[in-house]
Amino acid sequence: MTTPLDTRVTFDAVLARTRRAAPAFAATSREQRERVLSAMGAELDAHRDELIELAREETHYSAEILAGELTRTTDQLRFFGEVLADGSYLERATDADQGSIDVHRMLVPLGIVGIFGSSNFPFAYGVAGGDSASALASGCAVIVKEHPSHPRTCQAVLAHLKTALVSTGFDPETVNMVSGFEAGVALVTAPDIKAIGFTGSTNGGRALYDLAVSRPSPIPFYGELGSLNPVVVSPAAAHERAANLGVLLAGSMLQRAGQMCTKPGVILISEGPDGDEVVRAMAERVDAESSVPLLNPVVRHQYIVGTQSMSSLPGVTLRGGALSEGGEESDPVRPALFEATTSEFSGAESLSEIFGPTSIVLRYRDSDDARALLASLDPALVGGVHAADEDPHAADLMQAMLPGVGRIVWNGATTGLAVGWATHHGGSYPASTSLHSSVGASAIRRWLRPVAYQGVPDQFLPAELAPAGAVR
Amino acid sequence: MTTPLDTRVTFDAVLARTRRAAPAFAATSREQRERVLSAMGAELDAHRDELIELAREETHYSAEILAGELTRTTDQLRFFGEVLADGSYLERATDADQGSIDVHRMLVPLGIVGIFGSSNFPFAYGVAGGDSASALASGCAVIVKEHPSHPRTCQAVLAHLKTALVSTGFDPETVNMVSGFEAGVALVTAPDIKAIGFTGSTNGGRALYDLAVSRPSPIPFYGELGSLNPVVVSPAAAHERAANLGVLLAGSMLQRAGQMCTKPGVILISEGPDGDEVVRAMAERVDAESSVPLLNPVVRHQYIVGTQSMSSLPGVTLRGGALSEGGEESDPVRPALFEATTSEFSGAESLSEIFGPTSIVLRYRDSDDARALLASLDPALVGGVHAADEDPHAADLMQAMLPGVGRIVWNGATTGLAVGWATHHGGSYPASTSLHSSVGASAIRRWLRPVAYQGVPDQFLPAELAPAGAVR
Repeated sequence: MTTPLDTRVTFDAVLARTRRAAPAFAATSREQRERVLSAMGAELDAHRDELIELAREETHYSAEILAGELTRTTDQLRFFGEVLADGSYLERATDADQGSIDVHRMLVPLGIVGIFGSSNFPFAYGVAGGDSASALASGCAVIVKEHPSHPRTCQAVLAHLKTALVSTGFDPETVNMVSGFEAGVALVTAPDIKAIGFTGSTNGGRALYDLAVSRPSPIPFYGELGSLNPVVVSPAAAHERAANLGVLLAGSMLQRAGQMCTKPGVILISEGPDGDEVVRAMAERVDAESSVPLLNPVVRHQYIVGTQSMSSLPGVTLRGGALSEGGEESDPVRPALFEATTSEFSGAESLSEIFGPTSIVLRYRDSDDARALLASLDPALVGGVHAADEDPHAADLMQAMLPGVGRIVWNGATTGLAVGWATHHGGSYPASTSLHSSVGASAIRRWLRPVAYQGVPDQFLPAELAPAGAVR
Repeated sequence: MTTPLDTRVTFDAVLARTRRAAPAFAATSREQRERVLSAMGAELDAHRDELIELAREETHYSAEILAGELTRTTDQLRFFGEVLADGSYLERATDADQGSIDVHRMLVPLGIVGIFGSSNFPFAYGVAGGDSASALASGCAVIVKEHPSHPRTCQAVLAHLKTALVSTGFDPETVNMVSGFEAGVALVTAPDIKAIGFTGSTNGGRALYDLAVSRPSPIPFYGELGSLNPVVVSPAAAHERAANLGVLLAGSMLQRAGQMCTKPGVILISEGPDGDEVVRAMAERVDAESSVPLLNPVVRHQYIVGTQSMSSLPGVTLRGGALSEGGEESDPVRPALFEATTSEFSGAESLSEIFGPTSIVLRYRDSDDARALLASLDPALVGGVHAADEDPHAADLMQAMLPGVGRIVWNGATTGLAVGWATHHGGSYPASTSLHSSVGASAIRRWLRPVAYQGVPDQFLPAELAPAGAVR
């Protein structure tokens, strides 16, 4: 155990080393950073088996799940290389003033940024995840907070990133890591830290957000917090493909043992026989699922408390799976599917995310009832609409889903997120503390600030604004 | 006088009216909003004389200054029409996933936003200023906080904006105004308000920022606060054109009676005869300036306290103009130019903006001394570098100026800001609470949030994402 004092000394030492490395990294060219990201991807790929085994031990995910996540992670590093090659993220613009005084604008890196990865994606939202990849692409140095749920995976990934930095001729101190609660607080409050990326719980994220915005000089806090991710099934869709929908929705809820930020937490299904059939198919799939281990004792404890509490709400019944209780810290838990009708259950507006393999189905009477339910829910990262062709309710349900939702999925699972140019992973609070995406090309913008250069001679402009580089 | 209760009732009524108007405005096309902005510009232009006379009475600026500002303001409304016509601000992107499931991304308006204009630009940063123009361009409805320093100008401008809304077929309740301290607090804390734009003092801005970020659901607070705006004159520049520099710098300091957010507040000039000559020319120009009225009694009081306090700092001498004292609330004040050497004055890091016709010249020994001084100052909206051709210190001084400064001006006045595609008016805290510009094309992005549409059929996509509209 380290004492708070030890942590402080360690944090300051890590910060001092990072500060020395940061200016040279900020001065690298896009081509150089593309090479660094590519080398990082290659280094992680070269140690796949070791990394997957470490993460498997620490997260209880299967090797297959982790292999897919690691591939996504190294693809993501290379994708930000493409973003660098493209160069439009610099937002270069030039205004010529009467042909003599030009104003050029572009984005420049903020400096050193702090990153808090998530428990549930040890690779894709970890030390080499989307926050780090986009920050390094931007030219920022990075200090990661080690996740207590998978510290050895964090350390192994960090070592590989440092190797890649060295092999491409850069200072390995460009990426560093600190561990422990006190160091996390120090990371958010240190004057040298210019922005924070965070993926985690609403409570933890809000506490760190509050620290970031109450600094003497506040900094941006890009937090992805909790999200209910409502899904609505139209009566026509239920009529058309009840069994398929049941399997799709239950599968989405059970993916990674329900430990996904995009898990459908509330599923709106119409009353009546077609809706009954969707719920029956869901419950059947959930009943067939065996017990699953969760990420760590805290997630497990909160899952048990959350599902017990849900089962005791007036009007709520357990429809599939079973309730889990006490037991050992590492015991697996049972999935749990709840159901309520809107006439018997009035607590939709107080629902919040329960991490783990559980969701609640809310049975609605009609389109107005579904719209009112959607309006009463917290904003979310993603929402799903399942409708039929020529569906009379589709347009209404789409409209009702939109306010505050960052992504809307039509006739598909909300879980899973491709990393691309059109990706948006955000949403109004509490889904996110920021308007900006933590995933996809535009995530890089979070680590950059604009500078305008007015009348500055070519030789003093950044290389990116040399005459040939300027646009518009 | 209204009581707090009256204000609350008024605020709620105004909010309710705006809420009813907002959805229709959010659903307008870019072409429709371009017409609204154009009509607003035309309506203000048609009442120039009346508006200028009102503002002259309320601000004590000359009719000439106000005429220029009004032209800038109506040009700015039309400029955001150009931004709408261009359409790239929507940041449309499409990823095709195996040719079947497309993901489209674009920005959509946040809803209703609150805007606090400034005392010093009754038009350009007022009810129809850059914040309102960019917010209306984005499709957001706007509630402005009336500025107590020029309420009649605010009301007149508001009436013209409403006329323009009606004449183009839109609800005049799309833009509204509230007045008084309590209403300002209500504006920042109301759940229906989705973002705040603010231009004003560091103290006032920080207090409102703290409210915005401590809401149950925090919102973006785009604040432009105080700024020292350092300017550095290289020894070679002083040698080459001392008299010209003195006139330019003093003129920039005296513009609008020093009540500009881009005023050079700290001017670094080398020790020795060339620097002496620059300071002599500045002092001569300041001595020649007559007394000037300030915007309001609060600005005047703070100017007198600030300049008196500056004059009593160890090592600081009054070099031009004179100190002002007590007198009547509306008495004009004298400009005041201060000077200190770095060997006798060590308080640079605690300097902060004094609104009004005053600056301090800091005489530096050498390039290292100048760099250390610049590093000790707060981040600023803009910094100026005056250098010669083939200047051995220019690159160093440019580098030293960059950290935290939002705009850098070479051999020109920092005061004044063209509204264009490359404009950036921001800077690290306390210059701004945000990374985003409050002026220029990209200011529109502050009022928008991204949404991704995954697999959504064309008929349910926003018109802007109809197949022909999608890019990349």
